[in-house]
Amino acid sequence: MTRTPGESFADRHWPGADARAQAERVVRRIQDRICAGVMEVEAHASLSSSSSPSPGFREDRWLRPGGNEGGGITRVLQDGHVFEKAGVNVSVVSGTLPEQAVQAMRADHAKLQVMTATSGVAFFAAGVSCVLHAQNPFVPTIHCNYRYFEVDTGAGTIWWVGGGTDLTPAYVFDEDCRAFHTTLKDACDEFDPTYYGRFKAWCDRYFYLPHRKEARGIGGIFFDDVDELPLARAFAFLATCGAAFNDAYFPIVKRRMLDPYTDDDKRWQQLRRGRYVEFNLIYDRGTRFGIFTPNARIESVFMSLPLTARWEYMPDVVPGSREQHLLDVLSAPRDWIRSSDH
Amino acid sequence: MTRTPGESFADRHWPGADARAQAERVVRRIQDRICAGVMEVEAHASLSSSSSPSPGFREDRWLRPGGNEGGGITRVLQDGHVFEKAGVNVSVVSGTLPEQAVQAMRADHAKLQVMTATSGVAFFAAGVSCVLHAQNPFVPTIHCNYRYFEVDTGAGTIWWVGGGTDLTPAYVFDEDCRAFHTTLKDACDEFDPTYYGRFKAWCDRYFYLPHRKEARGIGGIFFDDVDELPLARAFAFLATCGAAFNDAYFPIVKRRMLDPYTDDDKRWQQLRRGRYVEFNLIYDRGTRFGIFTPNARIESVFMSLPLTARWEYMPDVVPGSREQHLLDVLSAPRDWIRSSDH
Repeated sequence: MTRTPGESFADRHWPGADARAQAERVVRRIQDRICAGVMEVEAHASLSSSSSPSPGFREDRWLRPGGNEGGGITRVLQDGHVFEKAGVNVSVVSGTLPEQAVQAMRADHAKLQVMTATSGVAFFAAGVSCVLHAQNPFVPTIHCNYRYFEVDTGAGTIWWVGGGTDLTPAYVFDEDCRAFHTTLKDACDEFDPTYYGRFKAWCDRYFYLPHRKEARGIGGIFFDDVDELPLARAFAFLATCGAAFNDAYFPIVKRRMLDPYTDDDKRWQQLRRGRYVEFNLIYDRGTRFGIFTPNARIESVFMSLPLTARWEYMPDVVPGSREQHLLDVLSAPRDWIRSSDH
Repeated sequence: MTRTPGESFADRHWPGADARAQAERVVRRIQDRICAGVMEVEAHASLSSSSSPSPGFREDRWLRPGGNEGGGITRVLQDGHVFEKAGVNVSVVSGTLPEQAVQAMRADHAKLQVMTATSGVAFFAAGVSCVLHAQNPFVPTIHCNYRYFEVDTGAGTIWWVGGGTDLTPAYVFDEDCRAFHTTLKDACDEFDPTYYGRFKAWCDRYFYLPHRKEARGIGGIFFDDVDELPLARAFAFLATCGAAFNDAYFPIVKRRMLDPYTDDDKRWQQLRRGRYVEFNLIYDRGTRFGIFTPNARIESVFMSLPLTARWEYMPDVVPGSREQHLLDVLSAPRDWIRSSDH
């Protein structure tokens, strides 16, 4: 692993590329904020339990091998007081997309559809992705990913932003779900009154395990190919979503992290972690892109996997139990915000 | 889950179909032998540790839903004295293969290549699959799968057999690896002197994780599309391979199952279990076929997953350690039998 000084990748590799440097600043700021949020609750738990200090984040700065440009900063905290595994990764990369990748992307990206077939296009991407798995079974797992993408079509550069934030509890507290969705909706509403509704539905469609006939979690927002805002406003949208991540999640963590739990609660959490692994290895596009990309930094790709997981054959779920409540919630998407009106 | 009496699926659904009934007898006998082998070491461990009796196998008999024919018998032992999770599954199914499935199979099955495109073909399959994950980190995980396949081409019925047995240790004992491969070679040599060499190489190719640049384990044998033996002899080959499974594996279990181990040994085993999950969910054709088949019995498909697994970010491996020895062994296939001559 090559460690490099802390300057911006964009400053170093693409001097004068303002949009690229700005995209990198946005995703690195989201990374910093999330890590600060994690460390705040870790410090709080260290104090209240009079236990040893939190292990803190390990940071690895890496460069892409094989002549491709860019690299990233991966931060992982393992076996903390509050978090079993917390991974927050920034990557800033560029190069040439092979024709196959362009074809695969065309369905998702409106402007790429009008491009004629080509032998590959130059691209730039800056993104942050984060998965936080807590120790306490009553603290949900959370995931987010925000990215800026730029493609040189030959007849000019096109860009878009994408990403989302979604929550995966092992036990459902309805008030947590409502507060979580409301915070994300408020962030979206600043930019477009249709965003939350569309991006919430997109999230429900994406984070779904057909072989289990259940959602991965209680959703959140998910979007891609957003380019109708002015560029500065698109960056502001990413930054606002990134800030909303902290506001939506850490209050839940603080509310639940000291709740007592039993071995059975922990066992259920571990079983749910198994479903999380299933989603990421079988369906998640980002993970599978990393797995099948030669020379991808596999440790950063698999940072999202939980520290521990469990698969039992035909586990019993007691009717009317809190475990059954989760399964009911995951069987069909809910309108969490409307349901708070009743 | 529909439970049915113990009669043969073939007797019930395909009266007079001798080959089908015989195939079912072969795979059910392999299942019975493996389960008996598991219970023998479980009983032994119960005695020597004066502990509670082994939980034994849970058996579920199931029928395929949705108008397809056949079903299966799944047996799973969980949290035993010796085995963390032992799954042994028989399925006997028939129906019509969609055109897409026929096309996908054509590359692997010589006789299918000459068939013209068709809107689907009738098929019959009888198979046994088994994965045994032990508690003790010094006892390797083992997997086998043996199957008989029959396809009605319209111009007559073609058949083949396939399968294999392979070993996945967390710690490598060279003498165990040599004995394991020698037993499989002896079984193959009864039928064709070229089988072991070809099927060992096939196994090494198949059980490989490109994203980790390592083999899943120390291999064994793997074959498909075997139809050049007379049918009775092909069944005898499956039965002999099935018997060799017990002879190759349970002596290793008995030798290692009472070895003392540390928390670090267990942690390493759990990390290796993570790699096992990766292989099965990302690459294994049988598992992925089950995941993407509507109405597949998902609990039987995922029976192969370990009870527990672990993913650490950048785990340390000490140079010269037994953990490093495993990684070295997995970095390139070995000729375990030739190496025993030296």
